[in-house]
Amino acid sequence: MANKVKETAKISNAVIKRLPRYRRYLKELKKKGVDKISSNELSNLIGYTASQIRQDLNNFGGFGQQGYGYNVEGLYNEISAILGLDREYKMVIVGAGNLGQALANYTHYYRAGFVVKALFDVNPRLVGLRINDIDVLDAEGLVEYVESNEIDLGIICTTKDSAQEIADKLCFAGVKGIWNFAQVDLEVPNHVALENVHLSDSLYTLAYKVSGNEGKL
Amino acid sequence: MANKVKETAKISNAVIKRLPRYRRYLKELKKKGVDKISSNELSNLIGYTASQIRQDLNNFGGFGQQGYGYNVEGLYNEISAILGLDREYKMVIVGAGNLGQALANYTHYYRAGFVVKALFDVNPRLVGLRINDIDVLDAEGLVEYVESNEIDLGIICTTKDSAQEIADKLCFAGVKGIWNFAQVDLEVPNHVALENVHLSDSLYTLAYKVSGNEGKL
Repeated sequence: MANKVKETAKISNAVIKRLPRYRRYLKELKKKGVDKISSNELSNLIGYTASQIRQDLNNFGGFGQQGYGYNVEGLYNEISAILGLDREYKMVIVGAGNLGQALANYTHYYRAGFVVKALFDVNPRLVGLRINDIDVLDAEGLVEYVESNEIDLGIICTTKDSAQEIADKLCFAGVKGIWNFAQVDLEVPNHVALENVHLSDSLYTLAYKVSGNEGKL
Repeated sequence: MANKVKETAKISNAVIKRLPRYRRYLKELKKKGVDKISSNELSNLIGYTASQIRQDLNNFGGFGQQGYGYNVEGLYNEISAILGLDREYKMVIVGAGNLGQALANYTHYYRAGFVVKALFDVNPRLVGLRINDIDVLDAEGLVEYVESNEIDLGIICTTKDSAQEIADKLCFAGVKGIWNFAQVDLEVPNHVALENVHLSDSLYTLAYKVSGNEGKL
């Protein structure tokens, strides 16, 4: 069974964080028609050491065969299943400004099973628009919509001042996870998953690298 | 001198990665008029342990005073200087789609010293537009513009297929760093800093958390 994963092993967060990267490269290989690949070849592509790759992928129960390497499509499917990418996620985007619109237009997610069902905004000039065939609805109706459409994930693209209130509403309405782009650390109940994307943090890290401080510290 | 940092100590990347987060909270405290704060209070706010915080901030030469705590503004300024945020960075955005426009509209960066000088695109329908008072220019002129305006950072918001070519041009033209939003790992010369923002990786990590696989693995 392709979706079978070892049920007893504990996989570290560090390994899980690397899986999307493996998946990304395997997808490219699949597209190019590559059937199998060795850990050394993967290492050249991805930049991790071959032993790191073998160790990571051994977590999932020996995809690789000695002297043969990894089956690209099998490994891709397996990693997709482990990440939970073999099913569909229904999402709403709250905040229909440029960033919200950018995410709504990003059809890549749609193909990967992440379906944006609606955008929400408080701005009357945005409410009623259609972005990539997705309606922008009045934020007033957020809780009811999320409940009745069994939305899995909420994407927060609002200003930081309203982000926590939106998160509270999304959690109350029953989302399982929140993808947060607002520049603030949100508090959510334990049963709700949270991924923060702090774009500034990434930019500031870049600034540090180019500032010339790196060598001095 | 506010900008003086210990020149001999080696600061780990892990600490550097946490500095933007410290800075974010200190900024909020500053705004609220808070003058000083203890490591315990900081711990409650930020979520790191007090001892982690003391250890992190000790790297920079004892901002804290026993029984007094940290001077909020002093620490904020110091961390800003360490991150290289006490100067201005000139940036261009390549790719003027929704994401590029979202970043151009994000005046927060402007206030932090990151100034977007121009957007570039190949699409004739976008060339000539003005986004947040910033011109969208023809991508043909990218290298010349970057050279003659001494641009520090290039932001890549193109599709993954053209991202490496754009990165090559930006590096050739002399940028010091690249902030990459395209879904591909770029290769740049050693002297150019690179920060990749793989939004999908973050989304897939979220999917993993809500998929129910987390407990099983």
